[in-house]
Amino acid sequence: MTQIQQTPRTTLKRLPKRGSHERETINQILDEGFICHIGFVIDGQPFVIPTGYARVDDQLIVHGSQASRMLRALKTGIDMCVTVTLIDGLVLARSAFHHSMNYRSVVIFGRATLIENREDKIAALFALSEHIIRDRWADVREPNEVELQQTTVLSLTLAEASAKIRTGPPLDDEEDYAMNVWAGVLPLRMTTDSPIADPRLPDDIDLPPYITDYTRHK
Amino acid sequence: MTQIQQTPRTTLKRLPKRGSHERETINQILDEGFICHIGFVIDGQPFVIPTGYARVDDQLIVHGSQASRMLRALKTGIDMCVTVTLIDGLVLARSAFHHSMNYRSVVIFGRATLIENREDKIAALFALSEHIIRDRWADVREPNEVELQQTTVLSLTLAEASAKIRTGPPLDDEEDYAMNVWAGVLPLRMTTDSPIADPRLPDDIDLPPYITDYTRHK
Repeated sequence: MTQIQQTPRTTLKRLPKRGSHERETINQILDEGFICHIGFVIDGQPFVIPTGYARVDDQLIVHGSQASRMLRALKTGIDMCVTVTLIDGLVLARSAFHHSMNYRSVVIFGRATLIENREDKIAALFALSEHIIRDRWADVREPNEVELQQTTVLSLTLAEASAKIRTGPPLDDEEDYAMNVWAGVLPLRMTTDSPIADPRLPDDIDLPPYITDYTRHK
Repeated sequence: MTQIQQTPRTTLKRLPKRGSHERETINQILDEGFICHIGFVIDGQPFVIPTGYARVDDQLIVHGSQASRMLRALKTGIDMCVTVTLIDGLVLARSAFHHSMNYRSVVIFGRATLIENREDKIAALFALSEHIIRDRWADVREPNEVELQQTTVLSLTLAEASAKIRTGPPLDDEEDYAMNVWAGVLPLRMTTDSPIADPRLPDDIDLPPYITDYTRHK
């Protein structure tokens, strides 16, 4: 598989066997998730803000209001860190110390580029929409010129990125395996509940299949 | 309800109606979640790392290996930002522009304090365990002295914290309500799958109720 070059920032200091720089592994995690946490620094103070994203080839796309403090800061090209975390389960060991979680996470470092060209901006917004709920875009009104102007779209190259993954059962100290306590993994995942129609929706509009069949796993 | 004092960092610049500084609102979000994203700065570079947490009164507790780069940095008392995000649903509007998500998030600013006293450290680790899976601690082997030494536990006072919440249906432009497209909310939540026993678990050990009845909603 293609490897992304390691840098000091993306090299795991501890538990290096949990780390990966394989592009395919990183892409799979990014494609299953849809919320990232973006870290950036203003006047020495770190901020961490959640937002939606999409991956297009080797680019991570984020967007927001042009009035957003985060987007106004990021579009100037300051250093950012984007983290995507998928929680797969609670790992219940026989000792408190060896309790853990199964997870898959990606950390990306870099500086954003502003997408200004109208065509590229529409393409990026389309990708965001498709990533979060596939096939929705074709059903809805596309952004008009005012809405496009009010929206800032940024891309971040997946050049300095790494994944970290834990899977499998607990790893206990050998002498603890004799303990009379349940041990294993409680799997966790995101699921949907029944869709809630807008109170103003007419009764004769059916749910589209991309809502009834919605799933994050691809 | 008790209000946490606003500061420039915790005052929402946009959409102020989504913001809250009510301690009860902040606590409810922190108590339902169990993963936070911690932002911190080393040599000007922001890092965002996911980790488990617990709330005890007005303190947020995090822990990790004493060898962890993050914990070694945070325990020196540098500025940090801790964000907890609960995704409640996808908000499907009639226009691409008005698509959104329902969510509840908390952002906390501050500097951590190292918990060194043995009794306080055990109490904090107990709180972490209880927060992530209640009643588990009583069944497992408690940390020994070596494990305690290998574990760094930090607390962060919930002094400068705010919540941000979006709920309810999409808000479309008036002229778009006539469109013939489904609109509403697709609720999302974390759920469990069937527990996976450790391959080394004897057959005669039953699942405890805190696993079979596990739920995040309190």
